[in-house]
Amino acid sequence: MDSMKISKETMQDVFKTILLSHGFSDSDAAESAAIFVQNSLDGVYSHGVNRFPRVVEYLKKGYIDPNASIEVEGSFGCIERWNANLGMGNLTAKKAMKRAIELAAFHGMGCVAVRNTNHWMRGGTYGWQAAEAGCIGMCFTNTLPNMPAWGARNGRIGNNPFVLGIPRENGKHIVVDMAMAQYSYGKIEEARLADRQLPYPGGYDSDGNLTTDPKAIEETGRVLPIGYWKGSSLALVLDAVTSVLSGGNSTQAIGKLCEDEIAISQTFIAIDPYRLGTREEAERILEGIIDDLKRSEPIDPDIPVFYPGERTIATRRINTKDGIPVTPGVWQAIMALR
Amino acid sequence: MDSMKISKETMQDVFKTILLSHGFSDSDAAESAAIFVQNSLDGVYSHGVNRFPRVVEYLKKGYIDPNASIEVEGSFGCIERWNANLGMGNLTAKKAMKRAIELAAFHGMGCVAVRNTNHWMRGGTYGWQAAEAGCIGMCFTNTLPNMPAWGARNGRIGNNPFVLGIPRENGKHIVVDMAMAQYSYGKIEEARLADRQLPYPGGYDSDGNLTTDPKAIEETGRVLPIGYWKGSSLALVLDAVTSVLSGGNSTQAIGKLCEDEIAISQTFIAIDPYRLGTREEAERILEGIIDDLKRSEPIDPDIPVFYPGERTIATRRINTKDGIPVTPGVWQAIMALR
Repeated sequence: MDSMKISKETMQDVFKTILLSHGFSDSDAAESAAIFVQNSLDGVYSHGVNRFPRVVEYLKKGYIDPNASIEVEGSFGCIERWNANLGMGNLTAKKAMKRAIELAAFHGMGCVAVRNTNHWMRGGTYGWQAAEAGCIGMCFTNTLPNMPAWGARNGRIGNNPFVLGIPRENGKHIVVDMAMAQYSYGKIEEARLADRQLPYPGGYDSDGNLTTDPKAIEETGRVLPIGYWKGSSLALVLDAVTSVLSGGNSTQAIGKLCEDEIAISQTFIAIDPYRLGTREEAERILEGIIDDLKRSEPIDPDIPVFYPGERTIATRRINTKDGIPVTPGVWQAIMALR
Repeated sequence: MDSMKISKETMQDVFKTILLSHGFSDSDAAESAAIFVQNSLDGVYSHGVNRFPRVVEYLKKGYIDPNASIEVEGSFGCIERWNANLGMGNLTAKKAMKRAIELAAFHGMGCVAVRNTNHWMRGGTYGWQAAEAGCIGMCFTNTLPNMPAWGARNGRIGNNPFVLGIPRENGKHIVVDMAMAQYSYGKIEEARLADRQLPYPGGYDSDGNLTTDPKAIEETGRVLPIGYWKGSSLALVLDAVTSVLSGGNSTQAIGKLCEDEIAISQTFIAIDPYRLGTREEAERILEGIIDDLKRSEPIDPDIPVFYPGERTIATRRINTKDGIPVTPGVWQAIMALR
């Protein structure tokens, strides 16, 4: 696919300008734009530059309130419950993880559960945020119903992403960011547009067989949970936990609100590991894990074994230097939003 | 497979007698035996009655110290670090989750990370324990290296089980307990002994192809992580987090100790959801989730869609009434240990 390269400075300016025109304060527009840019720099285009037009559409529809205020609805010790009042998802998520980190500084651990929020874009953002602050970060979100439960034909559970990150002194944090579906709808669409089969079965065809054919999966909407029954179960429990802690909408309740995905629930947890051990000890343990992983015998001698987060840093370096690759059509559409 | 039925009372007496003969105090023998019995009642025979002889073997080898004392090595706010000093894994895990629940009662949330502990048997035990106490429970453990990382040929990471449970007022808690491998070695062996193929690919054969043949997977030792690269990444990060929090052995360090699995690291987290919302609110949300799940259209009209934990309760009821099904050879071996 052809792509052009956009510098992070240009992208930041364009995003900020557009967000300002939709009523955000100067600082909120800058911060939200910066998250979209960072996601793009890190190679998560689906929840960076490629997603930006849809967020503008949600702003136009009134789904996202650029001036929403967060209300703290409950607080006890190191746990809090917030109502985001339909504010911008990435700004709310960043504030929630920041607060969890503050609570962890005081209590060793902190948790903020948020209801009535919107899509956080890339969940990994908040795992990296916690790690940058020297904390273990864990967060999860629910979604629209978009995946059948194990044994079911129709999609009533969410693919509910789960994020877990751990800090390293050198900034090369270890971060996993995974949805509970084997492939996102974005990846499935990407394969269909490129006329490619998926590398592994990603869902069911209309005969009820597992298939690698993206078109067949799109037709049934029956995407496959990771690990079959395992990802299905974990998705359901993550939804249960985040809805109960926040007092917010569960996946099934979100599905009843409208065609789109709004007013979702999220949980952010931070743990300060350096209150229990030293940074040196942590680094020795993590180096041991990574060094050993790197001694794996690769299946393909040309493809080394990576730890989670490793390739993010490599992509970030390249995109910072060379610019962020963007499909010209996407960039034109964004420029038209100014 | 032929099986006999053993009442929970008989199993408790036999297990307790054997544990007493290996030096446990009366109360520790009773409590550890009760965990093995409960796991068996709940249908997790692999980490109940079937595992008991191996634990006795570990006691004989001196891997497990029946009189170990737990040392609190670090404490800050609501997080603690313990050294289990190679005590019995299921007793230590139960104490650690109990302490996490106590911390949650005071701070809203609590975390205990344990090093130098032993196999906790069934992780779900501690998810149910937290739920019984009205808490959300989360716990994870590392293991011996027993699974290749994604893209690797040889097993250098662990299958690191993850547990997450949420309480319900009626005791029908929602609990997921999942290892990061698609199938445990126990399940693979079970399929081989029964001359059955696995229902879905569970690993690689010697040609490097995914296979459902249990024998071929046992020969390569290349079991498949759930969700391919996703389960591989999550396993690594869970190991990293639990090792850093506890200051204990990571999977690679455990692999260097001996042929068997000892001195592992575990993390236990409890959150008290009723400090943020009411029990009525939580129940309304959870009923909404389960009712909606039950409205799924099942693939097989004869197999309803279950929520995680639902079948555990059904099995518990049957085994409590009819006795616990045990393979005669296993029971004979256990009786010989008295």
